[in-house]
Amino acid sequence: MTDLSQLSNQQIRLARRPVGTPTGDDWQQTTEPVQAPPAGGLVVKTLALSLDPAMRGWMNEGKSYIAPVGIGEVMRAGGIGRVLASSHPKFAVGDLVSGMLGVQAYAGLTAEQAGRAGLEKIDTRMGSVTQWLNVLGMPGMTAYFGLLDVGQPRPGDTVVVSGAAGAVGQTVGQLARIKGCRVVGIAGGRAKCDWVVGELGFDACIDYKAGNVRAGLKEHCPKGVDIYFDNVGGDILDEVLARLAMHARIVICGAISQYNNTAPVQGPRNYLSLLVHRARMQGMVVFDYAERFPQAVAELAGYLKDGRMKSREDVVRGLENFPEALNRLFTGENFGKLVLQVADEVTGSR
Amino acid sequence: MTDLSQLSNQQIRLARRPVGTPTGDDWQQTTEPVQAPPAGGLVVKTLALSLDPAMRGWMNEGKSYIAPVGIGEVMRAGGIGRVLASSHPKFAVGDLVSGMLGVQAYAGLTAEQAGRAGLEKIDTRMGSVTQWLNVLGMPGMTAYFGLLDVGQPRPGDTVVVSGAAGAVGQTVGQLARIKGCRVVGIAGGRAKCDWVVGELGFDACIDYKAGNVRAGLKEHCPKGVDIYFDNVGGDILDEVLARLAMHARIVICGAISQYNNTAPVQGPRNYLSLLVHRARMQGMVVFDYAERFPQAVAELAGYLKDGRMKSREDVVRGLENFPEALNRLFTGENFGKLVLQVADEVTGSR
Repeated sequence: MTDLSQLSNQQIRLARRPVGTPTGDDWQQTTEPVQAPPAGGLVVKTLALSLDPAMRGWMNEGKSYIAPVGIGEVMRAGGIGRVLASSHPKFAVGDLVSGMLGVQAYAGLTAEQAGRAGLEKIDTRMGSVTQWLNVLGMPGMTAYFGLLDVGQPRPGDTVVVSGAAGAVGQTVGQLARIKGCRVVGIAGGRAKCDWVVGELGFDACIDYKAGNVRAGLKEHCPKGVDIYFDNVGGDILDEVLARLAMHARIVICGAISQYNNTAPVQGPRNYLSLLVHRARMQGMVVFDYAERFPQAVAELAGYLKDGRMKSREDVVRGLENFPEALNRLFTGENFGKLVLQVADEVTGSR
Repeated sequence: MTDLSQLSNQQIRLARRPVGTPTGDDWQQTTEPVQAPPAGGLVVKTLALSLDPAMRGWMNEGKSYIAPVGIGEVMRAGGIGRVLASSHPKFAVGDLVSGMLGVQAYAGLTAEQAGRAGLEKIDTRMGSVTQWLNVLGMPGMTAYFGLLDVGQPRPGDTVVVSGAAGAVGQTVGQLARIKGCRVVGIAGGRAKCDWVVGELGFDACIDYKAGNVRAGLKEHCPKGVDIYFDNVGGDILDEVLARLAMHARIVICGAISQYNNTAPVQGPRNYLSLLVHRARMQGMVVFDYAERFPQAVAELAGYLKDGRMKSREDVVRGLENFPEALNRLFTGENFGKLVLQVADEVTGSR
């Protein structure tokens, strides 16, 4: 058993509520001794953390689908870790686990905290550690239930997904293709577009940084858009609204274009297209589907195994680089699911 | 049989596409001789016409759920008429009919045109002529299918409806109450609010002209809004979005606040509330439910008969007053379903 008293826990805490894009001053780096696990609890060494657009929302005050991170608290983050010490009946030393570990090198959890953190053992025969933060983790679950439960794809449907090379988008598009849909991605830059078409098998991808989303949608969705899986909001949502097919479904997963706004959110001006096309726009939060995660993980792991699905993770190293790494999501610099590698022991991307 | 050659057909045609609120110059009044009915067709004398917010949309160019009215064409309008002459197998002289008669004193229709106009006999034992343009007509059908099929009310739900004293709103609210919901209206002015609460049995009504919609929603919807039936769009839609209950349903029926805009439509800035509350916003067009109209008419007529439902129509007289009358919808001057009485033979509102 590791001598915990030798370890020091590096942490990143929320120092204040950011206005617009978070800056270094919004964070505080702290160090604490690692404590012995509480009775019935455990200590987990963080291996890798998931960096997600939703984290920006958790930093804001106000009612949302989850309580905000408090000022002075360790920043909330999902991650993968290895159990260093445990008197929890479900977890043994050496187990690999996923859950809300927080932006820190070690997480000490009571049994009750482990439950709230959604701690579960993971099996790296189903996917690598980074894939467990991507296709087999929250982004994959979001893609799976958002597309299948909310979007309700039928073979032949035209599915458009924004943030196509990102964590959620890559799985949405590949899953839609597997379900027999025609898939059009929207991504920033030629490299991402080439990858989702060439590697992931999307039917087309529109490079929004190159310009004309409207013309691209017209060219690649001649019969209109049956499902739009929206990760970005803003102008792109409006362009897709203008191209809906009858009875279209829009899955509202996020609106990354709006998260650092200091002005009010840009509402979709073309929302009356919902009326014209008898269409619906529906929001979803992945945590609602927790009971069905195992079924989704099994299905997606099968696709990874048989090669019908690929994944790409963009790995940044070092807990101290968390603040800068997080901001790469909002500039679109990341290419693939953004992962912060916290300890050396991480199975690489595919 | 009436001597048709003695009749002249007064008509109102669309002279040009309005910019903003329609003005007198956007209309052209014409007079034509009434022709003998085409073989297999009929001539209908218009008794009353339905004036609806949707008509403003029909005057605009561009793709919508229905083709725009062409420049120079008789303005499209639904109405009730009496058959003056007929060689149509389904209609006999003297029958009362409803359908798209247009803003004209007489409609001459081929069998094919009668089909496209949705011509159907009406039974005034089920409701008065004006009620056949209201509860038993398109507004009632819109309320019925929008609330029940799209909104899917459950007993105990809190239902909010804007334009509460208007044609669609009055039926939405009463029907929701009959289905066991708590009903909160939003209307302009004390008189309308008093009427929907005192006469129609709404649980509360917020006077948006008096000010604070936000405070009113907070007071009257303490558990949030389960169903919002939206006839108005704009700021009110945003206020309701900010008060949604989990899994709320927003029925997008119209957006009268936006129809005369010369600026772009105001998109709902609070649309991410759909995500937070796992809610959906869905558009509907009443024509999609045509096959089920008889079932809805029978149910609503039953409520009128047993007194569980009331109706109010605001009747303006004279075809030539159509342009001014239509604009009353956009100022909110009408109180109840706006009807244009074209001929003297009209059963009045009770």
